[in-house]
Amino acid sequence: MFKKYNVIVVGAGHAGCEAAAAAANLGSSVLLITMNMGTIAQMSCNPAMGGVAKGQIVREIDALGGYSGIITDKTSIQFRMLNQSKGPAMWSPRAQSDRMRFAEEWRLSLERTPNVDFWQDTVTSLLVKNNTVTGVRTSIGIEIEADAVVLTNGTFLNGVIHIGEKRFGGGRTGEKAATGLTEQLVELGFEAGRMKTGTPPRVDGRSLNYSLMEEQWGDPVRGKFSFTDVPFIEEQRCCWITYTNTDVHETLKEGFERSPMFTGRIKGLGPRYCPSIEDKINRFAERDRHQIFVEPEGLNTVEIYVNGFSTSLPEDVQYKALTKIPGFENAKMFRPGYAIEYDFFPPTQLGLTLETKQISNLYFAGQINGTTGYEEAASQGFIAGINAHQKINDKHELILKRAESYIGVLIDDLVTKGTEEPYRMFTSRAEHRLLLRQDNADIRLSPMGHELGLISDERLEKVNQKIKNSDDIVAYTKNKSIDPSTVNSLMEELGTSPLAQSTKLFNLLSRPQVTFNDLKKADAPLAELLSAYDKETIEQAEIKIKYESYFIKEMEIVDRMKKMEDREINPNFDYHTLVSLSKEAREKLMRIKPRTLGQASRISGVSPSDISVLMVHVSR
Amino acid sequence: MFKKYNVIVVGAGHAGCEAAAAAANLGSSVLLITMNMGTIAQMSCNPAMGGVAKGQIVREIDALGGYSGIITDKTSIQFRMLNQSKGPAMWSPRAQSDRMRFAEEWRLSLERTPNVDFWQDTVTSLLVKNNTVTGVRTSIGIEIEADAVVLTNGTFLNGVIHIGEKRFGGGRTGEKAATGLTEQLVELGFEAGRMKTGTPPRVDGRSLNYSLMEEQWGDPVRGKFSFTDVPFIEEQRCCWITYTNTDVHETLKEGFERSPMFTGRIKGLGPRYCPSIEDKINRFAERDRHQIFVEPEGLNTVEIYVNGFSTSLPEDVQYKALTKIPGFENAKMFRPGYAIEYDFFPPTQLGLTLETKQISNLYFAGQINGTTGYEEAASQGFIAGINAHQKINDKHELILKRAESYIGVLIDDLVTKGTEEPYRMFTSRAEHRLLLRQDNADIRLSPMGHELGLISDERLEKVNQKIKNSDDIVAYTKNKSIDPSTVNSLMEELGTSPLAQSTKLFNLLSRPQVTFNDLKKADAPLAELLSAYDKETIEQAEIKIKYESYFIKEMEIVDRMKKMEDREINPNFDYHTLVSLSKEAREKLMRIKPRTLGQASRISGVSPSDISVLMVHVSR
Repeated sequence: MFKKYNVIVVGAGHAGCEAAAAAANLGSSVLLITMNMGTIAQMSCNPAMGGVAKGQIVREIDALGGYSGIITDKTSIQFRMLNQSKGPAMWSPRAQSDRMRFAEEWRLSLERTPNVDFWQDTVTSLLVKNNTVTGVRTSIGIEIEADAVVLTNGTFLNGVIHIGEKRFGGGRTGEKAATGLTEQLVELGFEAGRMKTGTPPRVDGRSLNYSLMEEQWGDPVRGKFSFTDVPFIEEQRCCWITYTNTDVHETLKEGFERSPMFTGRIKGLGPRYCPSIEDKINRFAERDRHQIFVEPEGLNTVEIYVNGFSTSLPEDVQYKALTKIPGFENAKMFRPGYAIEYDFFPPTQLGLTLETKQISNLYFAGQINGTTGYEEAASQGFIAGINAHQKINDKHELILKRAESYIGVLIDDLVTKGTEEPYRMFTSRAEHRLLLRQDNADIRLSPMGHELGLISDERLEKVNQKIKNSDDIVAYTKNKSIDPSTVNSLMEELGTSPLAQSTKLFNLLSRPQVTFNDLKKADAPLAELLSAYDKETIEQAEIKIKYESYFIKEMEIVDRMKKMEDREINPNFDYHTLVSLSKEAREKLMRIKPRTLGQASRISGVSPSDISVLMVHVSR
Repeated sequence: MFKKYNVIVVGAGHAGCEAAAAAANLGSSVLLITMNMGTIAQMSCNPAMGGVAKGQIVREIDALGGYSGIITDKTSIQFRMLNQSKGPAMWSPRAQSDRMRFAEEWRLSLERTPNVDFWQDTVTSLLVKNNTVTGVRTSIGIEIEADAVVLTNGTFLNGVIHIGEKRFGGGRTGEKAATGLTEQLVELGFEAGRMKTGTPPRVDGRSLNYSLMEEQWGDPVRGKFSFTDVPFIEEQRCCWITYTNTDVHETLKEGFERSPMFTGRIKGLGPRYCPSIEDKINRFAERDRHQIFVEPEGLNTVEIYVNGFSTSLPEDVQYKALTKIPGFENAKMFRPGYAIEYDFFPPTQLGLTLETKQISNLYFAGQINGTTGYEEAASQGFIAGINAHQKINDKHELILKRAESYIGVLIDDLVTKGTEEPYRMFTSRAEHRLLLRQDNADIRLSPMGHELGLISDERLEKVNQKIKNSDDIVAYTKNKSIDPSTVNSLMEELGTSPLAQSTKLFNLLSRPQVTFNDLKKADAPLAELLSAYDKETIEQAEIKIKYESYFIKEMEIVDRMKKMEDREINPNFDYHTLVSLSKEAREKLMRIKPRTLGQASRISGVSPSDISVLMVHVSR
């Protein structure tokens, strides 16, 4: 009934969709198996993509040839570049999405992708032969063969939903859980764990009093995620900000004795940085208010996402507390918030390609690896899909480095350090974040996407042109000097000290107060030069000029660490033979099987002296 | 947590959505409870609305102020007026829908309806006090009070899905079943039964060879369902027709011994007029082929609905047989067809308002009453929603008569005769179908919708204007004569006999060959008169002229039957006191409690002589 596929992707969330698209676009025949063709690419939690560090990941996926950026742009109803008052390494794109359109666009995009087939069913076990996955078996008893399988089961594996003292099985509210797969994987020798996440109540926008909240509009000039030209919805929507108060907190506390979190019914650890409201008022007892973002779920729907109010308290407590938030006095709920516990597999059981160490050609991506967040999931799916294709075609692996991408940081962290609680990305996790900016994701990664075959010649040429053009602009500013007489009145206007002598434009631009826009007035040739280039190119040049010294220093650090970072270790090296290693180091190294000395150095329990031992003894 | 609602509607399919909209538009506060806010108004089976007799129902709903027609128009991707070669009583509008857009538009329309609130949850039991429903209890243990409750549970009550020898619980594939409610209703004294329906596999349009199929385009001039002005998608999509063959049939037969229908695993009766393909080749063994309609599921999706190939045979047999259909040689399935068994409640337990006799203020609509079809469900929901509102406000009931609407026929049939198998509408079920046409649904029913408050003054005025204008046109044709010399060459051209003497336009138009469009050429004042009116008005006049004599005869029959049809019976009449009635008649009459002699006469087991007895003894 089914031909043998190259790659089967199980689950059609952010991870599964990117995995399917990537493998198919590389040329693999792909079967995407979803429990429900009607719920492909659901945004299970907040209707938004991007945010700090996460927006960078979406741009990285886009630069490599993934779909998340394009689909977000096409279906977003508000765009903001966060942190614009800070340095460019902190700038982070974030979009509110139309939930229904986002899912529809993903589905249609996959349908337009040759090589992607679909099958609605539930995978209940894997077919495994000689420690290699050979396909899947589904709930209706079908066996489908494949060269590789990517598991992206999200919160569905033995999912249990908690609302107060009630609990019931489900992968999301209103949807079934998936059973069988965890049990089989454990039998195969995998270690499984339990995690927890949560979601806030949804409310009826018609029942809110927005006059009691602060408006939050998108940027006046709409930015975007994708480096390609994508049509987007012109019309934008407003969000609002309101706050909890001590009244809200007191009301929530009334429900604590019925809370599944505080009474120990939930065993799994939740996301530390996306805590429930009860967690927040518990952990930060000194704070008398917490911010609530009131976010529309789409261009036309009245459904509202109450961002910041994730909770698994009893629904009556949720409701009572909600109505004490300014603007929510008459709020009507569409559905209560809930917590969900689900199975994950500690990601130290994976290699840097996201292939499992236990079973060849089997890849894990997304929440099954203990992460949280759409962007984290999408990027893992994307990398897993690529590596599944590459492996079965005997092509090179795609392993992104920590110094070249957030995705590299994410996967290295997961695989090397593991995670005990839902892992989310932060800029602080990236030691070279100065280099891993949203503005240069295309420069960093498009050549790699091109080499893989996911980025067209034309698109790469555009990136190269952007590099060349921005370099030309920088070069011009390094050559061109300007006289005090020409520019000093402008300097005064901008609140910066006047020039004593003729000065290069480059040096002027290094001052935080001075921008290209200002200098255009003083230097006509500059104005003419800039008029030939687009916004992104000029912005790139400006960032290069303003932060050049920082970037140079950062690059020096990267280069210095490179020797160790890139020093490869034979993955089959037997660490037990190195008696001078600590016992803990030997055990951890055997388990993680680091690919490089750099990776080895990040394993918890491996000390600098262990690394010194390795430096002497390990080589390929 | 919840205020008390006027009306709670359980289920958000076609029936539930119309019920919620109707009650809310009349002024009731309504809570629509759905298991999943993401699956409101799913087209569970074919992506189409209308068809023979069913299209008339949609126009009737529209004429009364329901939403189905408007939503169908806004989201359809192909429109055809079926049976245009037959008399106007057979003309039936039918539209292919964009499945995703249809659901989205319903949801947004309900969100735009003041008084409709939403709650995502599963109702597990009713709150009942003194044989009156007072609210519902949900799976998370919430109790919500209401003055009236409308149950529209579709196929979810104890739903069991069958594919070959496999079976599993579910309300639709990929969705949970609902349990608890049937058991409670049976405890309350309701009789429950089991029915079955089925759906075909969905396939990937990219895998089909359309060159081996016949194209089927929509009408060149796009018609519509709603009498209002609704914007619609301009772009239309093609459907295709192909056929099964003996090869397909032989392949299907290989699966018969694993068929849940033929091996007795399915107990419920399926829809006779929408049979599975295995049923068709079994019952019509002499036919060597069956028609298959290949229908796109939307404007942009590649998903295809294989209309005519409903099946619950094992998925491998489905697949093997599919690939033997011309054009399907390389077909890829998205999901297999399946059968589903579910609980229904024989509708003789309802009054003509769709309120249950057992429990006051409790209404049933849709598949729970043993019907099949979106249109049948929507109309019941609409009527139940109206009557729930009317009852709790001590306003008059809405009971449509058999002589004025298909909806009246539907409900009278259900309530009076009951049904043993899924009931669907046919023109043949309506004894006065000549009068119940799609073109005059507005004339028949809008005054009633207006009286209820669902049709605006302005809209009613438009209907009255249509009546007046078409009468004016008819009057002109009855007055205006035309000479043989002016018109005989045209008559010859049209293939009809020449005139011997001056003749009224009316008489000429009575000839089947002659239309307004033809006569406009011969009579300039007629052309001018018609130029002032829209298409619908002219069509109405033409139908009136061409079929006047039939309509008059039909109206006479209606009038003759009216005396008996409208003769009311005291609903509390004790038939046991009438010993001259047959025992069977007494029992049935006590059970059905007919509202009129007409209704009594349609109860199976009540003979003409029983009716004579009633005529003498029964009066209010």
